[in-house]
Amino acid sequence: MTELSHGAAWMGGRIIPISEASIGVTDWGLTHSDITYDVVPVWGGAFFRLPDYLDRFFASVAAVRMNILMDRQEVHAALEEMVAASGLQAAYVAMVAARGPNTVPGSRDPRDCSNHFYAWCVPYVHIVKPEQAEKGTSVWIAKSVRRIPKDSVDPRAKNYHWGDFTSGLFEAKQEGFETTALLDHQGNVTEGPGFNIFALFGDRLVTADQGVLQGITRKTVIEIARSKGLTVEERPLPFDEFLQADEVFLSSSGGGVIPVVRVDAHSFSNGAPGPVARSLRSTYFEWLEEPRFRSPIQYG
Amino acid sequence: MTELSHGAAWMGGRIIPISEASIGVTDWGLTHSDITYDVVPVWGGAFFRLPDYLDRFFASVAAVRMNILMDRQEVHAALEEMVAASGLQAAYVAMVAARGPNTVPGSRDPRDCSNHFYAWCVPYVHIVKPEQAEKGTSVWIAKSVRRIPKDSVDPRAKNYHWGDFTSGLFEAKQEGFETTALLDHQGNVTEGPGFNIFALFGDRLVTADQGVLQGITRKTVIEIARSKGLTVEERPLPFDEFLQADEVFLSSSGGGVIPVVRVDAHSFSNGAPGPVARSLRSTYFEWLEEPRFRSPIQYG
Repeated sequence: MTELSHGAAWMGGRIIPISEASIGVTDWGLTHSDITYDVVPVWGGAFFRLPDYLDRFFASVAAVRMNILMDRQEVHAALEEMVAASGLQAAYVAMVAARGPNTVPGSRDPRDCSNHFYAWCVPYVHIVKPEQAEKGTSVWIAKSVRRIPKDSVDPRAKNYHWGDFTSGLFEAKQEGFETTALLDHQGNVTEGPGFNIFALFGDRLVTADQGVLQGITRKTVIEIARSKGLTVEERPLPFDEFLQADEVFLSSSGGGVIPVVRVDAHSFSNGAPGPVARSLRSTYFEWLEEPRFRSPIQYG
Repeated sequence: MTELSHGAAWMGGRIIPISEASIGVTDWGLTHSDITYDVVPVWGGAFFRLPDYLDRFFASVAAVRMNILMDRQEVHAALEEMVAASGLQAAYVAMVAARGPNTVPGSRDPRDCSNHFYAWCVPYVHIVKPEQAEKGTSVWIAKSVRRIPKDSVDPRAKNYHWGDFTSGLFEAKQEGFETTALLDHQGNVTEGPGFNIFALFGDRLVTADQGVLQGITRKTVIEIARSKGLTVEERPLPFDEFLQADEVFLSSSGGGVIPVVRVDAHSFSNGAPGPVARSLRSTYFEWLEEPRFRSPIQYG
């Protein structure tokens, strides 16, 4: 273990221990949460679906009108250099674009800020502990908050506006649940902190199409499901319908497919992970190893 | 001018130049915008209405379930020590409570974070330049976004979830306006980046009661208005009604009362600051000097 194996950061071209990586207290990335980011998993010494994550990251950067003065190749090189230096073979790798400090004293104009890119990595994060995920996890539908609507903050540009999720998490923990999921203002199931949500009805899989992040793991799960002959519907998912599902599971780059056995007072699939969720989970970990999705890292 | 006169910060009990003040890239204050804060003005070498700002700050800290391990006296002392060290006689003084880093590796539970307090100050910020405020400013009603609703993120706990404001600001700048204001999802006028909004109808002053920060300057303006015999109504303010106002102005601790002469294509008070807004603006600056509101700073 080196100091970097606990986590490393790429800041302005330098690789440093993550404990030393910080941003200024007046950076708009902090004071206005004016940041967009993405997280690509590293598994078995390779990035998984890196081109997809880079596509989404650069689309997010454009959506929030930032210019990070780095192209895809440069971001890829920065991420690879950082992960290689950390030695991590399985990692959570964040790439971040921040609005930056305002370069004109007293200006309130976002165009006066100096945008910047940075990155950091830590050992692979499971949003639900693997032993819990194997048994099936529990999800509390937040009662005190609704998901920030897409016409307030666009969830497709991955962002740090997590106030609604954090309120939901406090509720969930208080109620004895592992995590939380939020409804939108129309009563549809949206997403949770770091994951999309799927519900299975017979051989039909349903997941929200709007008001959620277009997850890369969500996309992978949809591809796997179709390869197994399931029908996938991307559409609003009313909460009442959701509760009638045969199986429920989460998708996240932090753990793949995570079966859910309890939502509020409702049990799913007899309180154990359902066969479809287990099958998709297993295939997701197989896909993580497939050469067509891997961008191997050259470790030093 | 010392190095601290450009800005100073209080971080973990140390006073440092603001350029050196930062928070870690994995602090939930950053990665989940899990922060609450307040900004008290310093004017003429004294805090203005400091007890009110401290009341609100500690109410916000409680609302987001943080424990900063400092009481009012300690926060007051930290702020005073910092401003005194900076030598600033007129300052924008931010006090911040952040969720902090997660102390349990891999945990997704906000209760595992180590909350912390910090503060920073810079020379007094006018949210609208004084020369512009004297002439009356312009406000663009954002078309692409609505204010984050209060049942997603509570605006009364002052926060850094500014994605909706930033989208509005980009629109405003593109349209040639100074700043932006947002409607809620019901079509009522709410607030803008750093200010509340007032509309005058005859001798009735109307300002939103819900879905907005309960501004201390807003409160001061209401008190001044009542002292001048105006009626003040705190209630939802539909956009159509708003456009019929005799006068419109903003309230902010960064500049007091700021007359508005243009909203979208509509002119107010014949394109010049109205008499009531000018009177309130003038009285606000007088109140800034009143001993009953001042907590003088002991400079070294």
